[in-house]
Amino acid sequence: MTGPVYERIAIIGVGLIGASLAHAAREAGAAGDIKLYDADMNVRARAVALGLGDVCADAAAAVKDADLVILATPVGAMRAAMEACRDALKPGATLTDVGSVKKAVVDAIAPLTPGNVYFVPGHPLAGTERSGPDAGFATLFQGRWHILTPLDDPRPEYAPAADKLADFWRALGANVERMDLARHDVVLAAVSHLPHLIAFTIVFMAEHLETVTESEVVKYSASGFRDFTRIAASDPTMWRDVFLANREAVLHVLGAFSEELAALQKAIRWGEGDKLFDTFTAARRVRREVIEAGQDSPAPNWGRDKPPA
Amino acid sequence: MTGPVYERIAIIGVGLIGASLAHAAREAGAAGDIKLYDADMNVRARAVALGLGDVCADAAAAVKDADLVILATPVGAMRAAMEACRDALKPGATLTDVGSVKKAVVDAIAPLTPGNVYFVPGHPLAGTERSGPDAGFATLFQGRWHILTPLDDPRPEYAPAADKLADFWRALGANVERMDLARHDVVLAAVSHLPHLIAFTIVFMAEHLETVTESEVVKYSASGFRDFTRIAASDPTMWRDVFLANREAVLHVLGAFSEELAALQKAIRWGEGDKLFDTFTAARRVRREVIEAGQDSPAPNWGRDKPPA
Repeated sequence: MTGPVYERIAIIGVGLIGASLAHAAREAGAAGDIKLYDADMNVRARAVALGLGDVCADAAAAVKDADLVILATPVGAMRAAMEACRDALKPGATLTDVGSVKKAVVDAIAPLTPGNVYFVPGHPLAGTERSGPDAGFATLFQGRWHILTPLDDPRPEYAPAADKLADFWRALGANVERMDLARHDVVLAAVSHLPHLIAFTIVFMAEHLETVTESEVVKYSASGFRDFTRIAASDPTMWRDVFLANREAVLHVLGAFSEELAALQKAIRWGEGDKLFDTFTAARRVRREVIEAGQDSPAPNWGRDKPPA
Repeated sequence: MTGPVYERIAIIGVGLIGASLAHAAREAGAAGDIKLYDADMNVRARAVALGLGDVCADAAAAVKDADLVILATPVGAMRAAMEACRDALKPGATLTDVGSVKKAVVDAIAPLTPGNVYFVPGHPLAGTERSGPDAGFATLFQGRWHILTPLDDPRPEYAPAADKLADFWRALGANVERMDLARHDVVLAAVSHLPHLIAFTIVFMAEHLETVTESEVVKYSASGFRDFTRIAASDPTMWRDVFLANREAVLHVLGAFSEELAALQKAIRWGEGDKLFDTFTAARRVRREVIEAGQDSPAPNWGRDKPPA
């Protein structure tokens, strides 16, 4: 790097992603100046205490000189965030977001974007089960995918703006991909939204079984259940918004899941061992592919079980 | 420890659990002599190469002098393993197993147990997604639960035999619990069998979507899907047997899961954000309980994502 990618950036919404962006941009030297705003005054106070950057009292003050504005709120709060800052956006600025759903965000934000601003939607495939500004850390985006879903924008300045935004994410350690936004929503429904929905479901259900107590579930959780609790600890507001905003794609993939589950249920009921064996064998193969693609740790149990000291 | 808990033990079935038992018993000094047998000659050869103990050419030779015999085969192979060794069991020996289902194992094994042998069923809640003798390691049982489901056996020698078996597992680092065997099967259906079934289902389904390619699923798996691939890499034979052997309890808990999933599906379809939010918030609380109970690592993402070097 010979200098910052952007002289001034503004981050609107300071949760896990917004705070990580501030840490990562500073460590990478990708932004000369970082301003932040969050609608929650307690979050703003934490952002000040954490030294994330120049924390502003309103969204307009945060964005007015920014060359890049990043909307990092839950998907359902993006329209309000945009309404709070749109009139203050600098002519020529690039606007992006980090929403887990792209079509709904574009439908909400694109019509509000001033004619002299370049809106390039995006989604970092990065996160942990933690939320809030204290959960942020500088290496969150290292080696993770960042998906850009550029609009069909004919202005000659648009493509260079998207390229520069890609440079920014690469400076933070991400691998940048471009994807059609409708395709993004279908793929993410399968690889992210459905897995989260299933994890929320099994953990919620386990609390409400009439035959097994919650304390038994917790006590013996290392036999399988605990894996689901990690994802199910993710931010409820963020995930509510994802399911409301990507309804069609989620319902589609959920239908496919329910069909497979019903087929396995039938195989169990009728004692069809070969059907079970073949299904489990096929599933096992996918694990190898995920590890070969560098997308997960090969350590047994993720290396999390250290013998007690 | 002032000496081995048992002078001579025999391990029948040398997979992840059997091999880990051999490593752990040797390291702990819990057994003076360790004999092993596996019906698969390739597995026997690996057991020899790994130095797991005295590998025998048939089950009868392995058990004939043993004070403790541990059946460590998949649940569906236990009857055959028992038939191969029952006539050679030493009078006064203790017999146990490590099956993930208890009633079906007891139904198969108890009627075949000689009158001068003490059968104390058990189940270590320990494992990884790996299988086979090379996957075994000495610390697998450290800090994990071992559930004993003693029979209703009136012989005066039975309770001391069960106590001694508990001492053996504690010597290997496990925390020993006793549980009614029917209750064991209901609890494990909820905390272990259903989570595995769900993971197998979602991973198998993701391979067969008409709208998303398998390579996309693998590439973007870190956004949620990868978590399920770990459990879904577990041994297909072992899990086929578990579902066939614990059918009623699994179908019961699967019914509860499907009801909750249908309720969430309906909430998504009708845009009931409050229902989603409340469900996700309740699920999040369970994660805290699991961590407070010492049953999982509190590290975000289990600490598995190291930035690339």
